[in-house]
Amino acid sequence: MSKEARQTMTPLSDLERIFDAALTRIDPYKMIVDHVRLQGSRLSVAFEDQRHEVDLTDFDRILVLGAGKASARMARAFEDILGDRISEGLVSVKYGHGEPLSHVRVMEAGHPAPDENGVEAARAMVELARGLTGRTLVLNLVSGGGSALLPCPLVHDDGADSVRLTLSDKQRMTAALFASGADIGEINCVRKHISGVKGGRLLQLMAPATSLNFILSDVVGDRLDTIASGLTSHDETTFAQALGIVEKYGLEKDAPEAVMRALRLGAEGRLPETAKKGDPATMLATNILIGSNQAALLAACDTARGLGYNVAALTCGLTGESREAAKFFYGIASDVRKSGLLVKKPACVIAGGETVVTLRGQGKGGRNQEMALAFLAEMARDELKGRDIHFLSASTDGTDGPTDAAGAFASREVLGEAEAAGLSIDAALRANDSYHFFERIGRLLKTGPTMTNVCDLHMLVVA
Amino acid sequence: MSKEARQTMTPLSDLERIFDAALTRIDPYKMIVDHVRLQGSRLSVAFEDQRHEVDLTDFDRILVLGAGKASARMARAFEDILGDRISEGLVSVKYGHGEPLSHVRVMEAGHPAPDENGVEAARAMVELARGLTGRTLVLNLVSGGGSALLPCPLVHDDGADSVRLTLSDKQRMTAALFASGADIGEINCVRKHISGVKGGRLLQLMAPATSLNFILSDVVGDRLDTIASGLTSHDETTFAQALGIVEKYGLEKDAPEAVMRALRLGAEGRLPETAKKGDPATMLATNILIGSNQAALLAACDTARGLGYNVAALTCGLTGESREAAKFFYGIASDVRKSGLLVKKPACVIAGGETVVTLRGQGKGGRNQEMALAFLAEMARDELKGRDIHFLSASTDGTDGPTDAAGAFASREVLGEAEAAGLSIDAALRANDSYHFFERIGRLLKTGPTMTNVCDLHMLVVA
Repeated sequence: MSKEARQTMTPLSDLERIFDAALTRIDPYKMIVDHVRLQGSRLSVAFEDQRHEVDLTDFDRILVLGAGKASARMARAFEDILGDRISEGLVSVKYGHGEPLSHVRVMEAGHPAPDENGVEAARAMVELARGLTGRTLVLNLVSGGGSALLPCPLVHDDGADSVRLTLSDKQRMTAALFASGADIGEINCVRKHISGVKGGRLLQLMAPATSLNFILSDVVGDRLDTIASGLTSHDETTFAQALGIVEKYGLEKDAPEAVMRALRLGAEGRLPETAKKGDPATMLATNILIGSNQAALLAACDTARGLGYNVAALTCGLTGESREAAKFFYGIASDVRKSGLLVKKPACVIAGGETVVTLRGQGKGGRNQEMALAFLAEMARDELKGRDIHFLSASTDGTDGPTDAAGAFASREVLGEAEAAGLSIDAALRANDSYHFFERIGRLLKTGPTMTNVCDLHMLVVA
Repeated sequence: MSKEARQTMTPLSDLERIFDAALTRIDPYKMIVDHVRLQGSRLSVAFEDQRHEVDLTDFDRILVLGAGKASARMARAFEDILGDRISEGLVSVKYGHGEPLSHVRVMEAGHPAPDENGVEAARAMVELARGLTGRTLVLNLVSGGGSALLPCPLVHDDGADSVRLTLSDKQRMTAALFASGADIGEINCVRKHISGVKGGRLLQLMAPATSLNFILSDVVGDRLDTIASGLTSHDETTFAQALGIVEKYGLEKDAPEAVMRALRLGAEGRLPETAKKGDPATMLATNILIGSNQAALLAACDTARGLGYNVAALTCGLTGESREAAKFFYGIASDVRKSGLLVKKPACVIAGGETVVTLRGQGKGGRNQEMALAFLAEMARDELKGRDIHFLSASTDGTDGPTDAAGAFASREVLGEAEAAGLSIDAALRANDSYHFFERIGRLLKTGPTMTNVCDLHMLVVA
């Protein structure tokens, strides 16, 4: 970049540019077309150190399946690469996340709360996945939200051991688990065991077909058995554990009777387990992680370096309470400013992950907007009132909490604008009302839905 | 270190050694004798970029005053340097923190709650500080706790405007402020204005004497007007602000009548203000920061480097909830392990500061022990159960919360021991009972009182 162009930019516009670079890296369409090549009949895939190749002449049919917010865009990329070679397909996406496709059917459904459209999509997908031959290649396009968008209550027909769960059974069980204080690992264990597709059951349905599964991770840690509840991954948990969890939290009474019966039958070995490591169905599947928070974070780091910043990447596994993480960031920022402790000025410090907000108030906001607001509160307490310190926290899906903003900015400028507008940071924090706070002074970041999702990024510039 | 010696050490013993190095750096005796030199009649002081020199022939008397946990040990260092040149002196220290001294009187008093012994020490110090001449040199030795150890309720004799506050007045006012939700900056503003020595009033008493003030910082950010309530620093707040704070929180009724009267008289300009920037008394004072969390942290970093670790220093300004900071550290640790994101393995990541614990249970613990326990909870949730990750959080004063431990260790080993002992991490966290948890498995760090205090250090090794 020329020196002149550089000089017209501000730290806040740099932050926006750094975030944009991260979004570009995880654009689902671009990820596929940049890393998947068709040469003659050979389809080759190269994502960083993951390399795979299939010869399409080994197959009679190519099926494209998928579920998740990014799945329609991923399907469009495969239509552009494979065209008429795709026999048919189906992806289930969140309302408003569809794309016009020619070979792949797009169904839109409810997220985060699953609905009947999702059930219908799941039913249609099970139909497609069943009865395939060894000469079928399935391309599964899995992304965040895939679990809610493919609700498939377990159904098993076997005389006295038959099980037929409903969406309402699954929903009641899940609600009881959330209310009980069970952790997310425990909740997922139970959910997988009352689903007809999760925990690798989709793979069991598809066998003996071969599958290449393209996975965009929206979970901290990128565990394949967790993203979209492990549609294409083996599962390390069992029916016995799922039953144990329900008992541990004393939910035998709150759980629907049909669920308890299914878990007990399963624990007695009278229902087929989810796919385990070594299950023949998993041997036919190749899982490829095409994008993750780390990929977005590394792209952000590269761009920050290009803009002339000294860069430190902290983690792509940030969890915990948003407003507390803001304090940690502010401590780091103060010492970069004072002494260049972690990294010398001009500095850019980046982290990614997914924090939480414990709601205390009735306001509107999201975890990223709340983090920016708490960061601003630290700034206000700082003797130097945030001099040289600039912060952006934003969600890569463009939707932070139930709002139309991706996140918000914090800087000394923003602090001054809030003071001039007579806004109280403490009152907004107490009310969890970060959205209205930043909206009032025009410091929300709005990207619109990005059609992708790898959690959040938090970017700090000290310059 | 020889390769053989290195091999006998473990990451946990490395962590202890790194912390020891930090304690050595901030040993109050050592800090003084290493950085203060007497050559002939010239006393020279060199702490990093702070350099000062006085010619003792300019003075007839040398007085040593001080308050804080470390002040007796600092006075002993000056006795060793200056010997009989010291005319007299007085330091007020916490019970059990005295030293046998020959020229300087040591008084022990209550901390953190001030008591009548503290009032007596303050009275004696005011006596010593009053009526000095321009040919007196005062060496003030200020450290954490100095505020509580020198309680000096404001007394002003001036006919109708006379004010005579008592310890009980100050205590009632402070208690009301704490209960009101006022922040620490607001509380300190009021406290300084009802004190006869804080906010630089000690300097006003000593004028026209010259002072060299040696300050060991126990507050995040190292603000001289905050450490020991700014005994030797100018004050940026006013009586009018102090009165405004009491009114803001509606404490006019809860505040003792004598305090309200003093604040109102002061706000009307009828009482002398605390020392302001440019006050002649402050021009005679030279403040020298001899130790801080950053100094301890940098010493820890040097030692970690010497042990072969790649080192990242995050901040010396960590605040916020202990258990939330633990999650941030764990995120960093996971990515160091997985990809060397922040720093390559073998890595040591260090931060300092002072976190808080919001008490929910009835257990025993401290902010550092709680952080180690919360770190262990993250480890238990980790797929790899904390492999390669080791953590120590400890207070530099050797007393974490109301316990006899400085802090505690977390590692996979520790996790295994806790499991073997049937301890529940979650239950201990709920009860804020970190002390008994770690005591049971022998994983507390006990240093005894260190006679120094620069807040806490948190040290992570991934190897």
